[in-house]
Amino acid sequence: MESPVFELPQSELAALKIKLEAEYSAFAAQNLALNMARGKPSGKLLDHNNPVLDTLSDHCAADGTDARNYGILEGLPEMRKFFGEVLDMDPERIIVGGNSSLTLMYDSIMRLFVFGTGGNPAWRTLPVLKFLCPSPGYDRHFAITQEFGFEMIPVPMTENGPDMDVVEELAAGDAAIKGIWCVPLYSNPQGICYSDETVARLGRMKTAAPDFRIFWDNAYGVHHLYEEVKLADIFAACEAGGNPDRAYYFFSTSKITFPGAGVAMMAASYAERKEILKRMGIQTIGSDKLNQLRTLRTLKDAPTLKKHMAELAEILRPKFDIVLNTLEAELRDGGYASWITPRGGYFVSLDTLDGCAKKSLELAKNAGVTMTGAGATFPYKHDPKDRNIRIAPTYPTDEELQTAMKLFCVCVKLATVKKLCGEY
Amino acid sequence: MESPVFELPQSELAALKIKLEAEYSAFAAQNLALNMARGKPSGKLLDHNNPVLDTLSDHCAADGTDARNYGILEGLPEMRKFFGEVLDMDPERIIVGGNSSLTLMYDSIMRLFVFGTGGNPAWRTLPVLKFLCPSPGYDRHFAITQEFGFEMIPVPMTENGPDMDVVEELAAGDAAIKGIWCVPLYSNPQGICYSDETVARLGRMKTAAPDFRIFWDNAYGVHHLYEEVKLADIFAACEAGGNPDRAYYFFSTSKITFPGAGVAMMAASYAERKEILKRMGIQTIGSDKLNQLRTLRTLKDAPTLKKHMAELAEILRPKFDIVLNTLEAELRDGGYASWITPRGGYFVSLDTLDGCAKKSLELAKNAGVTMTGAGATFPYKHDPKDRNIRIAPTYPTDEELQTAMKLFCVCVKLATVKKLCGEY
Repeated sequence: MESPVFELPQSELAALKIKLEAEYSAFAAQNLALNMARGKPSGKLLDHNNPVLDTLSDHCAADGTDARNYGILEGLPEMRKFFGEVLDMDPERIIVGGNSSLTLMYDSIMRLFVFGTGGNPAWRTLPVLKFLCPSPGYDRHFAITQEFGFEMIPVPMTENGPDMDVVEELAAGDAAIKGIWCVPLYSNPQGICYSDETVARLGRMKTAAPDFRIFWDNAYGVHHLYEEVKLADIFAACEAGGNPDRAYYFFSTSKITFPGAGVAMMAASYAERKEILKRMGIQTIGSDKLNQLRTLRTLKDAPTLKKHMAELAEILRPKFDIVLNTLEAELRDGGYASWITPRGGYFVSLDTLDGCAKKSLELAKNAGVTMTGAGATFPYKHDPKDRNIRIAPTYPTDEELQTAMKLFCVCVKLATVKKLCGEY
Repeated sequence: MESPVFELPQSELAALKIKLEAEYSAFAAQNLALNMARGKPSGKLLDHNNPVLDTLSDHCAADGTDARNYGILEGLPEMRKFFGEVLDMDPERIIVGGNSSLTLMYDSIMRLFVFGTGGNPAWRTLPVLKFLCPSPGYDRHFAITQEFGFEMIPVPMTENGPDMDVVEELAAGDAAIKGIWCVPLYSNPQGICYSDETVARLGRMKTAAPDFRIFWDNAYGVHHLYEEVKLADIFAACEAGGNPDRAYYFFSTSKITFPGAGVAMMAASYAERKEILKRMGIQTIGSDKLNQLRTLRTLKDAPTLKKHMAELAEILRPKFDIVLNTLEAELRDGGYASWITPRGGYFVSLDTLDGCAKKSLELAKNAGVTMTGAGATFPYKHDPKDRNIRIAPTYPTDEELQTAMKLFCVCVKLATVKKLCGEY
């Protein structure tokens, strides 16, 4: 086992730098052009879902509703039943949206900001607004709360979810803190699954704001790569804690069928759902019900979905293996980085030595591999330690990914050595 | 020609009332259950569009973009080109939305309210907000401005569009007036087409608010029942008037293909579009591009669309004939009502004698025919003269419509006679 890179004497570092620069130049000469910036599924994953493109031979819902026409704001009954079955919740909590759960989240923040809920003042009328942002996290979440002017407070992650001691103290102590972003299963980017205790504490914790909301984005709720991980019921936790209206639940088929043409949904308490539907009814006459039917005719029911996801996992697992095996082979012994091995989801999160993330990604980009920008996983795109990197292995082919990961590891090593040589 | 009903002596009115009550009872005995409340297309109209349901055999856009995946916030280039060709505008003004132009309108009001535009203060920061509402108009427009707390100012309609003398005076005199709702071609519900002069005046008028916005909802832009009516270019008018950013243009294929699963779009000045896209990019990663392809593969181009709309008009014209012939036969001679004969669009607007609309619709509903609620065509659902009724003939079959219109005319007559007899 070699010494960790940060223990090497300057003379060895200098020699290592020359070697790595040569390796880097060899990659750069290949004129690569790979984009791994976003969590997009590959063509092969999408091809697996092509039955959704088939002719919709019957355009009527089970109850005879003509899905081509206006109406059914809350979504087709069978679509709500499907989501209820898959996520183990009452369909009467569910509202089916369009093709984007992100839009459902944005619109939920917007409604709370403009109108308020449950008789509480609209958030826009308050002098300061804050939001808890477990970090590293999902940049598009942070972008929404930034857009509406929230002060975003990073919360560290533990292996069981956000650090609940920190969350509880903050939420109880400041009425300006209005909510928290959560990706409870296979969190983006770390792949962390919230423990039952974390879920229970989120449901029962005291919050200074009476209208504190948990934004429960279960984007990877069925994206198991290995065994099935069971997520505790956030609605039950909130009810048990005496806070039945606290959680907004989001889910979509974006990474089950097609990212651009999936079916999104949100769920809430019965009281909140009623209020949301009333306001939503001003904004739309209803979402695309034909796409609900199309999606349902392929995914059918919970057992069929389970089989479908197992098939997608067959395509995804080799990609995660490539990432993890390459990291292990290239970065472990030299102590260049640490990472978490996810059991599902769409990402691998890696921490370089402090101050090396930005440089690593800049080197990769200059050699033709674009990855998620450094800092993107933190509020305001500011990673205080400049160390977190999100690896999104799902889009490239296996061959492209192998090349990209080898280059990436060279970049991390070179950036680290340059740092230790005092070059930046 | 019989005397107008309002000139009949009480004795004749009493006899007439008995006769009408008998006719009404005969209808009531049929246990009708027809809903004509909304402008929904009939099954026959929808069937004509079923090719949109066919298998999407190629899921790539013309430039090779995989329409199944994330991205292309502004919509597929060929979809923007299509809308540009049909509406005679630069595709670079266009943003393609989801299945609802209403949502694009709501979200536009929301952005102006929450964020503002063009460096002007967000509308939410202003003490009072007002909006011009040409009336009778579209209830879902009014519901949006009501939801965001605007004081809605009704503006009378003329045969050339809103009374521009009134619009100009109001807009110039009050900086709280932030915009105007317009359905410029075959207006909802009257079927009025804005004249070139009206469009030019809207573009050049002085407004006290620097960020006054015209919400140009061209929902029936290609829904000609007879000859093609040409609408003047609102963007050109605004530019000519020195107000290039004034108009937001909305359109959709909801009543061209499927109301629940069409493709919506909005257009604006280049500067406004850029600002809108930036904010929209926080709310969504992009609309359903597969549905854009599906819709395009059926509608293809402007000439194909023209043929398609002519075919739909063949189905629609008999419905309008039934409505207008029945009104003519039943209500003209007695002077019970006045109405405008539309040359396109989706509605017929009728005015009863003052104070008779609500009663007429109540009678119709009690006999099993539900029509758009009285007052719905005015802000706050308040028709000051209680006389306007929107007839939506597109959903029922021709046979149902014939029955409904006969009943409706009996109801208008009976309500009128009851009124003249002093019964309410």
